[in-house]
Amino acid sequence: MTSINEAFLSDFSSMSSIGSTAGGGVDRQAATVADGQNRNWFRGLVEGHGFSVRYDSVGNQYAMLELVPGAPWIAVGSHLDSQPLGGRFDGAYGVLAGAHAAKRVEAALVFAKETARFNIVVINWFNEEGCRFKPSMMGSSVYAGKISAAQVLETTDPHGITVREALEAIGTIGDFELSVSAYVEIHIEQGRSLEDRALNIGLVESTWGANKYEFVVNGDQAHTGATIIADRQDALLGASALVVAAREIALKHSTAEHMVITSCGEFNVFPNSPVVVASRVNLLVDVRSTDPGVLAAADADLHARVGQIERMANVRIERGAEHVWGAKSYDRAGLKLAGEAADSLGLSHGVVRTLAGHDSTNMKDVVPTIMLFVPSVEGISHNERELTRNEDMIAGVELLSEVLLRVVKGEFISDSDPTQELATDTTVGA
Amino acid sequence: MTSINEAFLSDFSSMSSIGSTAGGGVDRQAATVADGQNRNWFRGLVEGHGFSVRYDSVGNQYAMLELVPGAPWIAVGSHLDSQPLGGRFDGAYGVLAGAHAAKRVEAALVFAKETARFNIVVINWFNEEGCRFKPSMMGSSVYAGKISAAQVLETTDPHGITVREALEAIGTIGDFELSVSAYVEIHIEQGRSLEDRALNIGLVESTWGANKYEFVVNGDQAHTGATIIADRQDALLGASALVVAAREIALKHSTAEHMVITSCGEFNVFPNSPVVVASRVNLLVDVRSTDPGVLAAADADLHARVGQIERMANVRIERGAEHVWGAKSYDRAGLKLAGEAADSLGLSHGVVRTLAGHDSTNMKDVVPTIMLFVPSVEGISHNERELTRNEDMIAGVELLSEVLLRVVKGEFISDSDPTQELATDTTVGA
Repeated sequence: MTSINEAFLSDFSSMSSIGSTAGGGVDRQAATVADGQNRNWFRGLVEGHGFSVRYDSVGNQYAMLELVPGAPWIAVGSHLDSQPLGGRFDGAYGVLAGAHAAKRVEAALVFAKETARFNIVVINWFNEEGCRFKPSMMGSSVYAGKISAAQVLETTDPHGITVREALEAIGTIGDFELSVSAYVEIHIEQGRSLEDRALNIGLVESTWGANKYEFVVNGDQAHTGATIIADRQDALLGASALVVAAREIALKHSTAEHMVITSCGEFNVFPNSPVVVASRVNLLVDVRSTDPGVLAAADADLHARVGQIERMANVRIERGAEHVWGAKSYDRAGLKLAGEAADSLGLSHGVVRTLAGHDSTNMKDVVPTIMLFVPSVEGISHNERELTRNEDMIAGVELLSEVLLRVVKGEFISDSDPTQELATDTTVGA
Repeated sequence: MTSINEAFLSDFSSMSSIGSTAGGGVDRQAATVADGQNRNWFRGLVEGHGFSVRYDSVGNQYAMLELVPGAPWIAVGSHLDSQPLGGRFDGAYGVLAGAHAAKRVEAALVFAKETARFNIVVINWFNEEGCRFKPSMMGSSVYAGKISAAQVLETTDPHGITVREALEAIGTIGDFELSVSAYVEIHIEQGRSLEDRALNIGLVESTWGANKYEFVVNGDQAHTGATIIADRQDALLGASALVVAAREIALKHSTAEHMVITSCGEFNVFPNSPVVVASRVNLLVDVRSTDPGVLAAADADLHARVGQIERMANVRIERGAEHVWGAKSYDRAGLKLAGEAADSLGLSHGVVRTLAGHDSTNMKDVVPTIMLFVPSVEGISHNERELTRNEDMIAGVELLSEVLLRVVKGEFISDSDPTQELATDTTVGA
């Protein structure tokens, strides 16, 4: 298998040059020029190998490899968009691995003189990262019916450009629709549990529960030089205290069994002038935990702290949009199938939970879904220094090929009813 | 005097329409289109009343009213630039008041058949606010020899535009030079001590000491979803803790006699994406006090806290540029002259200190300087709701006219040596 693995690494290297940054990462935020270059590059790559490519109304890109005319479709995918100064593996690895795996499945079927029961579509979901346009996981959220295409198309970036305008500018929007019967995704772990346990592969058992809040801290604009402390309504002080409180809550509520993780990634100060007490800060805070009870306790604590901070900083804190995801499991039969496939290839593996959201987080709520992880060196992610070693990438492509082969042969879901119900209860815990 | 006061209010109202904002303030940041409109409007206004207008190499605007050909010059001034969403009084009031006062002095001399010993120049100092281009008090700092014109001209705004380019774009740069023998400024208080004491006028005795620091908090970019707390080097957490610590230090070190005020007005997060742990935050922190000993203790405490925060948030905090101003007094003879002038007009007055920096903070270090305040309603400043009542503005113009009349008649400084030394020790306290 040497030459096909080299082909994968070569294609990955070519793709990584698109939107590349000086620090060894990429900047291919959703529907930017660089994302457009990459989407069109990927189209050229796979059309050269017999796929046909279409776009749906929110820019999801479908690369179809038809193995059996008229058969239902199973999907493999991830996302080609990146964070600003992001790593070159996050998402992009999974899409390219999907295309290579699909070709390997086709070749394996020919070699074994077997017939598939499903066709394969590789999906590049639009805007998984959610930095230029919010929220994240936009394309797969529309596919899963969680938000409407109309709402997505009107969403604007900080310069007032809509998703529709941005997608039209790079020529990657259409009206294609495709119903798929199952979903498989491979992604870098973005944590270090696989590396710490010296495993080749992570089989994702469940997502963590996450509560995300948009807070608006309202103070009153004043002169930093002339306004005494007693007269201040300092929005930046209130917002800063909220960031500090969020960390304190993570440390306080984490237990040996169930970790709590709190984050604030976006924090905008107005008017943000050196000599002005801030009138307003908008910030996003999220609270995550593997356990619903622990999450609820941490969340209640956060909201109690909001009242204390309002009094301390003499500000008013509004809670804006809120997104709540319960901890949910992936398909149990898929977990078993992937473990057996890894065993057949001699790859070490273990069960993991995903802290981060992925397109599969959406897809698992509408079709049977399998989610696989490959290791990230030191767990570094959303960073130009993000790294997955070549041997780990290759092991991942080999496993994905084996899993896909089993799925298209009907070992995961039946092809008799492509709209079948989810096989297992998807709620974890209480 | 009704008609000349109405003329002042009418001119002030016209000026306030330039760069006006929906909230009743103005946005005329230094060397923007709106600042250019205002500078040229002011030139037209005063040239219509016999002044001649020139610009120096860093865009300071000189409006000269020559009373006695060949006599030395005394200056009156302030600044026409504003904060983004700033008030319409801050700086602009003082410049317009200076022009009106100069004309009243000219008329009073004619009426009394007296001859002036000085000429009057009204100076609109470039970029007092320091929001688009840093540092603040830029034009008067060059005049006072504290920074070089070359350095100022190369300073860039956040879009990479230099001061030179911005001044050329609005046509308000030249090569004029003028040496002045004394300086008088009137400004809104931007605090509420005059209002609280029901006084018409504040006579500024001294500046507060201020230490300003640019901190850079360095963390490591990571995925907010996937990175566990133990692995985080969260720059936003470190910077937030610094903002909270600064407030704690102000409260801890303030005494009944000497207040400590700490502020953070500018706070920039990188990369500032919703799902990314911040790699870097740049923030400005300042510590002010009326007492040098109290200031030194608060400052030492702040720097001790930096080390604790580095360990707590697992970040590295660099201290960048630093600006330190000792508490300094204004000219004692000027304070006496202004008090007597106010008494002659029946205006109530009291001694105040200025927490904020002003162009006079620079000028007092190079020539004998008088600084006057008029009340600000509720002390609100750097805010569209900033307000000084018409009667207080008019009382200020009347006092400024009386003070200027005394100064041009030689009652403040002698005209025998226009380069004379400062009369008093300018250091307050230890």
